[in-house]
Amino acid sequence: MTIQVFGHKSPDTDSTGSPILWAWYLNEIRNTPAEAKLLGEPNTEAAFVLERWNLEKPAIISDVEPGAPVIVVDTNNPAELPAAINQADLRQVIDHHKLTGGLETKGPIDITIRPLACTATIMIDLMGEAAAQQMPEAIKGAALSCILSDTLEFRSPTTTDHDRAIAQQLARDLGLDLSAYAAEMFAAKSDVSAFSDAELLRMDSKEYGVGDTKFRVSVLETTAPQMVLDRKDSLMASMADVAKEDGVDQVLLFIVDILNEEATLLVPNDLVRGVAEKSFGANVSGDTVVLPGVMSRKKQIIPNLAV
Amino acid sequence: MTIQVFGHKSPDTDSTGSPILWAWYLNEIRNTPAEAKLLGEPNTEAAFVLERWNLEKPAIISDVEPGAPVIVVDTNNPAELPAAINQADLRQVIDHHKLTGGLETKGPIDITIRPLACTATIMIDLMGEAAAQQMPEAIKGAALSCILSDTLEFRSPTTTDHDRAIAQQLARDLGLDLSAYAAEMFAAKSDVSAFSDAELLRMDSKEYGVGDTKFRVSVLETTAPQMVLDRKDSLMASMADVAKEDGVDQVLLFIVDILNEEATLLVPNDLVRGVAEKSFGANVSGDTVVLPGVMSRKKQIIPNLAV
Repeated sequence: MTIQVFGHKSPDTDSTGSPILWAWYLNEIRNTPAEAKLLGEPNTEAAFVLERWNLEKPAIISDVEPGAPVIVVDTNNPAELPAAINQADLRQVIDHHKLTGGLETKGPIDITIRPLACTATIMIDLMGEAAAQQMPEAIKGAALSCILSDTLEFRSPTTTDHDRAIAQQLARDLGLDLSAYAAEMFAAKSDVSAFSDAELLRMDSKEYGVGDTKFRVSVLETTAPQMVLDRKDSLMASMADVAKEDGVDQVLLFIVDILNEEATLLVPNDLVRGVAEKSFGANVSGDTVVLPGVMSRKKQIIPNLAV
Repeated sequence: MTIQVFGHKSPDTDSTGSPILWAWYLNEIRNTPAEAKLLGEPNTEAAFVLERWNLEKPAIISDVEPGAPVIVVDTNNPAELPAAINQADLRQVIDHHKLTGGLETKGPIDITIRPLACTATIMIDLMGEAAAQQMPEAIKGAALSCILSDTLEFRSPTTTDHDRAIAQQLARDLGLDLSAYAAEMFAAKSDVSAFSDAELLRMDSKEYGVGDTKFRVSVLETTAPQMVLDRKDSLMASMADVAKEDGVDQVLLFIVDILNEEATLLVPNDLVRGVAEKSFGANVSGDTVVLPGVMSRKKQIIPNLAV
């Protein structure tokens, strides 16, 4: 029975590319039938990557059948997975996020979580050098894209030397100018003109509670922050509706300026002003605040969040 | 700050030996100060192993300080760990059990769970061949003991070829007759004369719920089953008290005959008779029932348990 390999809902480049990478490995190296799937439409950067490397877009699934063999990558959080995930036959988890709790298995399975920047880096370690050398160009391109995306071309503090070394080796193998390629990817991600305000607020977001307050912590990584900031009034006006629909108290939108290595937080009300002050020691005057050096939700935003 | 490395409560050989193995690796190979700890008195087999290899008994701890750096091995179940485990600074998990859910971390950490028979096997894979070759005799002896214990000298269906190959290599390195050594270990485990009935019922047990019924699923692996069966009346009489004290509905005691590769389940009442019939298709007449081939709680008992 073919194993379905998928990442988290609202797939970004790592959650689109790394299932493709791992399905390739299982099929070609391990002789195990596997198919990459998506839990939603890939974001604009991931869509660019698929097209750039001529990779077929994986089928989008909305749930999994009880007992179906599945491999989960780039998350271990049941909230980011199909509703029936704990009824599926979960075979493996490969991830680089904090352990959330909630995912359960009936028997011992294969779980690899590493404090690296990117799932693709862990996969290349797991498959070993010999297998990694056999990746065709498109698969190497997908792996490289995952690492550049998750590290923001090595600018994010989540980047490790190992992620960097693997990405540079892939770029050399592909004869690719790494920085020029990263710029193309980030330009694709930055083109958010097609999205509604509500879509932008939900595009790359994770729910996180601080005490009794539930946040939707949204991040928009962009090389064109002004394009988002031009829409700040209508984005802030949409926040209350999105929060209500999603059952959270507040949406936090961090616009991450990849090139200037800073984030701008929209400040629609006193709750968010308090968050900015208590979490980042920021001095807030208007309805936005710049947080110098803040690029990573995982390393810099979530661990510091205070109300 | 020294990292504390420990396994589960009621430590068996793997939960005693593998923290010693990993602390050795961290100290000697990774230059990281680490110390093995125990969450209780080791069982008689583990105590034999410590003495046989002249290893110092790790200190027993009852809880962990908030923020203290810790590594958890041979379990991922918070119920088997110190109460404050989610307040500690959990750095790594190395395990071979099903994912239980409930363990949480603040940031991404290092988690390796593999469907192998033994934590020590996974550790030797993680450290790599070169490091494994540097293990002194006592550490190799501890690693070998963990594998022989968890696989019941390769008789348990949890055994993989990889566990077997690693153990055989260790025995060769040590110039040890593997079977003769295993027999010594199992004899140590089989000497249960010093334990009260309640201690025997709790010695190697895990709580497991089926629907609304909570069981304490206890296993006694022995080469001398008659020694336990001679006490069956008083063991069954103790079950109700132990169940009540521990907040479960029923204790299930499986006496695993290592050499004959079968388990005997004590049947004190109709609830357990039903369990024997529904879980194992057994035909129960008296107050015990023999289950041929049943050796592993993880692979054969827990997955089949039905009420």
